Amino acid sequence: MADFTFYTVAMSRGQIARWALHEAGADYNTEMMTWETRPKSFRAINPMNKVPALVHHHNGHDHVITECAAICHYLAETHPGPELAPTFEEKADYLRWLFFAAGPLEQAVVAKSMGWEVPEDRSGMAGFGSFDLTIDALDSWLTDRQFVCGDRFTMADVYVGSQVDWGLQFGTLPERDSLTAYRERINARPAKQEANAIDMAAMEPADG
Amino acid sequence: MADFTFYTVAMSRGQIARWALHEAGADYNTEMMTWETRPKSFRAINPMNKVPALVHHHNGHDHVITECAAICHYLAETHPGPELAPTFEEKADYLRWLFFAAGPLEQAVVAKSMGWEVPEDRSGMAGFGSFDLTIDALDSWLTDRQFVCGDRFTMADVYVGSQVDWGLQFGTLPERDSLTAYRERINARPAKQEANAIDMAAMEPADG
Repeated sequence: MADFTFYTVAMSRGQIARWALHEAGADYNTEMMTWETRPKSFRAINPMNKVPALVHHHNGHDHVITECAAICHYLAETHPGPELAPTFEEKADYLRWLFFAAGPLEQAVVAKSMGWEVPEDRSGMAGFGSFDLTIDALDSWLTDRQFVCGDRFTMADVYVGSQVDWGLQFGTLPERDSLTAYRERINARPAKQEANAIDMAAMEPADG
Repeated sequence: MADFTFYTVAMSRGQIARWALHEAGADYNTEMMTWETRPKSFRAINPMNKVPALVHHHNGHDHVITECAAICHYLAETHPGPELAPTFEEKADYLRWLFFAAGPLEQAVVAKSMGWEVPEDRSGMAGFGSFDLTIDALDSWLTDRQFVCGDRFTMADVYVGSQVDWGLQFGTLPERDSLTAYRERINARPAKQEANAIDMAAMEPADG
């Protein structure tokens, strides 16, 4: 049995987790589903009924990890191999921007896509304040740096980078010099190209 | 100089970070602000212009950490003392529910408070799916456990517990047996009582 079982749907946030698995060099099997063919039993693994979900078969236990950013960080911390977890000195930046992307950035992008506006007098209630404030914060951080933690690629870039890549691709993030340059660096990662190719191939009709 | 400088506003998510500081037994100074007296210079620390923000003065560097859940986890991982970080076997549950609370749960509660509804055909786009699905997932996890990782309190409970405590207090989360029982366990923590008392006192008018 492989170390990990990976539950995913080709066109989903599961692409982020597959990239993380490839960066880590993890040994995994894929349970490839579609939104229509998700079995009822999947709810026992993730009651949110969403993908990705990862099961780590370790020491006689099955550890379930859900939430994309959690999967990325879990792999960085538990998988021996490339140094994708932060050093002590990198930890503040790494955690800050990983949670920023999973929280305010995700919220700001979803709100904008749905056409939801935060009333000005309630900006403190919504953790992202406003869409522009959120994008400006990310823009200014990436203007001065190659990657989230500076010169070195870490697992935080798999998650933050995927948000930037998808956002620019689907037009939910604005074009900014810092974001487009960061996206190019992200898309140059061999592990991303390899992982994305698997999901792209799965999206093609079987009869060509 | 203390190890940490803590920027906060008494009535804010900063209460969560102060509780985390007290659980960790951290040596910190508080920069207590109000929304009105936040200096312009604070934006250099957090361009999102929100609290809490924590600065770790370490080895000649000033490490800035923002995002409440990131602050909690950073303290658990870097501060010597009580075992608040997860063991290897607890890591999957810990990270899963920490990111669940910072992502889907926060998003679901904010959307409900703002009166935002996810159209049924776009539930995949919003990472929380629906409010009920999100609450049911948390409810079922806490029905079988004392704390996020089982029998033992960890730093994940500071963040998840604060969400539950605030949600029940302000009526943004529904009363469920699992949630009210968990809240009681959370509110019994001496470090929480101690930390909350400081912020409560700061909210009282100076002239009594």
